Amino acid sequence: MGHTVFHEGEGKDIDIANLSSSRRHAGNVQTAYKVGFPPQKSLASELGAKLRETFFADDPLRPYKGQPRAKQFLIGLQSIFPILEWARDYNLRKFRSDLISGLTIASLCIPQDIGYAKLANLEPQYGLYSSFVPPLVYAVLGSSRDIAIGPVAVVSLLLGHLLQKEYDYVKTREEYYRLAFTATFFAGITEAALGFFRLGFVIDFLSHAAIVGFMAGAAITIGLQQLKGFLGIQNFTKKTDIVSVMRSVWGAVHHGWNWQTILIGTAFLGFLMFAKYIGKKRRSLFWIPAIAPLISVILATFFVYITRADKHGVQIVKHIKKGANPSSVHLLYFSGSNLVKGVKIGVVSGMIALTEAVAIGRTFAAMKDYSLDGNKEMVALGAMNIVGSMTSCYITTGSFSRSAVNYMAGCETAVSNVVMSVVVLLTLELITPLFKYTPNAILASIIINAVAGLIDYKAVVHIWKIDKLDFIACLGAFFGVVFVSVEIGLLIAVGISFAKILLQVSRPTVVLLGNLYGTAIYRNIQQYPEANRVAGFVIVRIECSIYFANANYVKDRTLRWLRDEEEQLKENNLPKVGFLIVDMSSVTDIDTTGTHAFEELYNGLKKNDVQLLLANPGPLVMEKLHASKFTELVGLDKIFLTVDEAVTNCSVKVQEEA
Amino acid sequence: MGHTVFHEGEGKDIDIANLSSSRRHAGNVQTAYKVGFPPQKSLASELGAKLRETFFADDPLRPYKGQPRAKQFLIGLQSIFPILEWARDYNLRKFRSDLISGLTIASLCIPQDIGYAKLANLEPQYGLYSSFVPPLVYAVLGSSRDIAIGPVAVVSLLLGHLLQKEYDYVKTREEYYRLAFTATFFAGITEAALGFFRLGFVIDFLSHAAIVGFMAGAAITIGLQQLKGFLGIQNFTKKTDIVSVMRSVWGAVHHGWNWQTILIGTAFLGFLMFAKYIGKKRRSLFWIPAIAPLISVILATFFVYITRADKHGVQIVKHIKKGANPSSVHLLYFSGSNLVKGVKIGVVSGMIALTEAVAIGRTFAAMKDYSLDGNKEMVALGAMNIVGSMTSCYITTGSFSRSAVNYMAGCETAVSNVVMSVVVLLTLELITPLFKYTPNAILASIIINAVAGLIDYKAVVHIWKIDKLDFIACLGAFFGVVFVSVEIGLLIAVGISFAKILLQVSRPTVVLLGNLYGTAIYRNIQQYPEANRVAGFVIVRIECSIYFANANYVKDRTLRWLRDEEEQLKENNLPKVGFLIVDMSSVTDIDTTGTHAFEELYNGLKKNDVQLLLANPGPLVMEKLHASKFTELVGLDKIFLTVDEAVTNCSVKVQEEA
Repeated sequence: MGHTVFHEGEGKDIDIANLSSSRRHAGNVQTAYKVGFPPQKSLASELGAKLRETFFADDPLRPYKGQPRAKQFLIGLQSIFPILEWARDYNLRKFRSDLISGLTIASLCIPQDIGYAKLANLEPQYGLYSSFVPPLVYAVLGSSRDIAIGPVAVVSLLLGHLLQKEYDYVKTREEYYRLAFTATFFAGITEAALGFFRLGFVIDFLSHAAIVGFMAGAAITIGLQQLKGFLGIQNFTKKTDIVSVMRSVWGAVHHGWNWQTILIGTAFLGFLMFAKYIGKKRRSLFWIPAIAPLISVILATFFVYITRADKHGVQIVKHIKKGANPSSVHLLYFSGSNLVKGVKIGVVSGMIALTEAVAIGRTFAAMKDYSLDGNKEMVALGAMNIVGSMTSCYITTGSFSRSAVNYMAGCETAVSNVVMSVVVLLTLELITPLFKYTPNAILASIIINAVAGLIDYKAVVHIWKIDKLDFIACLGAFFGVVFVSVEIGLLIAVGISFAKILLQVSRPTVVLLGNLYGTAIYRNIQQYPEANRVAGFVIVRIECSIYFANANYVKDRTLRWLRDEEEQLKENNLPKVGFLIVDMSSVTDIDTTGTHAFEELYNGLKKNDVQLLLANPGPLVMEKLHASKFTELVGLDKIFLTVDEAVTNCSVKVQEEA
Repeated sequence: MGHTVFHEGEGKDIDIANLSSSRRHAGNVQTAYKVGFPPQKSLASELGAKLRETFFADDPLRPYKGQPRAKQFLIGLQSIFPILEWARDYNLRKFRSDLISGLTIASLCIPQDIGYAKLANLEPQYGLYSSFVPPLVYAVLGSSRDIAIGPVAVVSLLLGHLLQKEYDYVKTREEYYRLAFTATFFAGITEAALGFFRLGFVIDFLSHAAIVGFMAGAAITIGLQQLKGFLGIQNFTKKTDIVSVMRSVWGAVHHGWNWQTILIGTAFLGFLMFAKYIGKKRRSLFWIPAIAPLISVILATFFVYITRADKHGVQIVKHIKKGANPSSVHLLYFSGSNLVKGVKIGVVSGMIALTEAVAIGRTFAAMKDYSLDGNKEMVALGAMNIVGSMTSCYITTGSFSRSAVNYMAGCETAVSNVVMSVVVLLTLELITPLFKYTPNAILASIIINAVAGLIDYKAVVHIWKIDKLDFIACLGAFFGVVFVSVEIGLLIAVGISFAKILLQVSRPTVVLLGNLYGTAIYRNIQQYPEANRVAGFVIVRIECSIYFANANYVKDRTLRWLRDEEEQLKENNLPKVGFLIVDMSSVTDIDTTGTHAFEELYNGLKKNDVQLLLANPGPLVMEKLHASKFTELVGLDKIFLTVDEAVTNCSVKVQEEA
């Protein structure tokens, strides 16, 4: 027993010592240490430190330190264009991996793109456009190796819903498209701006639980929307809530459903689900569910073509415009009320798109153990959407399902995205006419199958087990989306997330401490029922920074512990409490309202002849208690290094007086 | 040395022991204590406890406990009508005190009421109406003994500003008044509802610093508005920002200022300020500044009457309607867009009025050492505004300056408010015609003198000293009010308050700990430069609950400490870090995102051959780490009671292995 210690002094000299011998007397004698004041800092350095910790918590300038200027320039360039970094040791082996994974995700994305474009009320080719340009931009600027870029279901649904509220996609087609590109542009601006100003942490404010609920709700809503194509209903509601959709569906049951459509849809949905099952059963067969959608599309299209099922009411895609993305720069709104609408829709959809992409990036970076600069990622995602908005793309982001396939197919770099992009281009240039006879039912089946994965019931069970409040947030977001609209669901998700933070902050815990017999340790008596309360003392521990939102509560709660204790003592005819010790170990910070509350606490206690003692205040707290002259009021000798010292010290005094 | 301990076990048996002897061995041996799991609680009792702590933190049912039913009924009745409680031992001595203080605040409120009504763009009698009915209602329902009820400057300004944005008070007079009463009604509903649903704590979310800035800004704005009356300008801007007002003032300098008016205003402002100075100098002369305004009004009115200065351009009040409050029930809007406007204005103004009243109530309750139920107070304030809105009153609340005078004049109960109310009634019934010749300049002087007290420069200095971020919040609110509008200033105040909470939550501190030589105590090495880092260990302390808003940051920051340490070790050719100890003492709670981040931390460390050890996790944290199976992942033997035990334990292992 015994271990080495090295000194953190002025120099770097290492001081080896044996702790255990010197520590023999610890605990029962007063230590020689005083509660430390932090080193005095100037306002500038204090604010600087705060800003640095807030915006540059990841220390992005670390690699530049101590490097020659030329090297610094190179690192800077590489950090803007990560492609310069990984392209240098790119080789054929890596390319083979990327080629395979790129082809796999391309086969998955083509049918999905067409379906998702319909979710956003856009013509099918716009989905393909969006899988061509943005992945290329991302490959140059992005640093995730596994993310697969393109349109995703939830953002498509959200965008379609928000756009439709402003313009009808049939009656005011031109405005609808122009607003879609404008929103995409501002989604990109939002993402890039958040990254550039290092505000990426704002997306952390959407709680995981709320996202799980929102995603599951969105999946149900998207699935319900697919009933139109799946059942072959002609007149379908434009609302997304479950009540309207169900009314639409059952209202059409007698003369709206088309059995041929249902047959095709059901058969292929069964096929897709079986493929998925196989992929889950054996991970090496992951490529079966990945190419199943494309196979389904080919088979179904061929089937409709030879049977001419479209004559029997089976709805088909009919027409996909041939050729690569046209320019859409001239379509963006940069003035008037449409600009405001575009900004609004763009900010909301952009944030949601960002949330998804960042979650994906983080997940796979953790799995492959490389680090990802969230803020830089956001700039890349933003740039890709800005360029996209000028080339007829709508909002794109990372797709969870396709990224997972990309990862399992063994992608090495963003080149897999480039491969996918090239395949999509070839599709647009060459084979779009072949999609003419693709039945809508098969697209519906593919989407239903894809979004089913968004319902993360395991996460819901996990949340239920761990945190009931989180579970309520999750349910709230879910029901909001399903019963009202995506927008309301999102609002509920955000609202609950914030309410949770505010609740947590306004009601911090103040617990009663007791001594563990035979030690100098004081612990929460609820957690350690064996901990003994010390007669004559009430020892509480405030477990949060104290500031305006909770100062009054903390003060009142502390006094309530004292009152409870005094009542109990009275019942037992025991001497009254003489000391209130507040363990400040967990109080990181205190503001003016907090110091004021402490003054009130002190004055209130004084009237009742109870002495206030503080134990282990942190550096910031000491500084502020000093600045507000509270240390003078209560006396520096009433501030102790540990609870134990406070208890010991005052017990001595009481005995001396007696 | 040695003190008594009593056991907190099943029973209440008291166990006397001497700590010091048993503690002799503490510190250098492994204690027998394990990290406690909290007692298992059912979902209902868990949620119940949480709700109780959130909404019933003040334990309002305490007096009912263990009382017979009849007594409980009486206590219930008394808690609804506090008058039943204090009226029982009311006596002549108390009445004499209340009479004197009531007369004093009446003399202060009458001229103020007339001026404040003008601030809200209402006719002067509405100010007096508002000092008649609401104080009576409050006397029956309220529990503060010192608050003086009536119109106040800031709320009048805010209400006037918000109403004027909807309807012009000259052109659409009827709508303006109807909306004013509707807003008052909903301000009352808001206040009562917040109290009834025990949501009173929401007003704590406005930080003290922001309020100080907002109030100072409002005082400046109100003062600037008085320049109209003070300088005798006829055409004055309806905007409130300093730029517009200054333009208005200097634009009128050549043919808009009236020297007679300025003379009267300046003379009496000097008199009022002198009276204030005397009151401050000798606290027993507090009544001089209290009656100075009424004396000024009487003198100025008499002076204008005999010199007929109104013929020379001195503006006078001209007309105050005689008689008590007419009913205004039929004027309230209960439908249409005016309802929506009324609700909006009412909610905002009601909250501000509430903030002021609650602050006053708390201050004086603390000074006289009686307790005040914030939620009950809100119901009382709400009821008084609801009744007020039906009797031609506009929003009233507690006035800081008049409450202070009330307190100093020795008020005993809310009867002083009743006395004031009766005096105001007599004024309305009998002497309003006498106010005809009162010059507007004197009212302006009274208001300028009154609102000067809202500029709490001492508080600003205090805030600057203690918390720079608070100071920025204060400045932001101030400049928002002065340069833009009350509304924007308020928005800035609220925004900064929330931003501060979110910042605090998203960037908790994670500090590096070191051992205090010769003890088992580990402390922040920044605060205690003498603390030694332990070789082979990185010991960090997370000083906040971990949840979605900060889980990623906490994880990354912890890893950064490790990386920094490893780099330093590498430079010195020292062996690498083997253990990361996370002191969880201050982590009160953790959510699903938090447990997930810990799993990632564990996996990341494992890859780098660093063992993760936890020290002193709290009850909730243990429960959740257990539910999420993290305790199984990391191993229960890696969770220690204290940092010291973790260090000792692992040092032993390392030596055994060597």
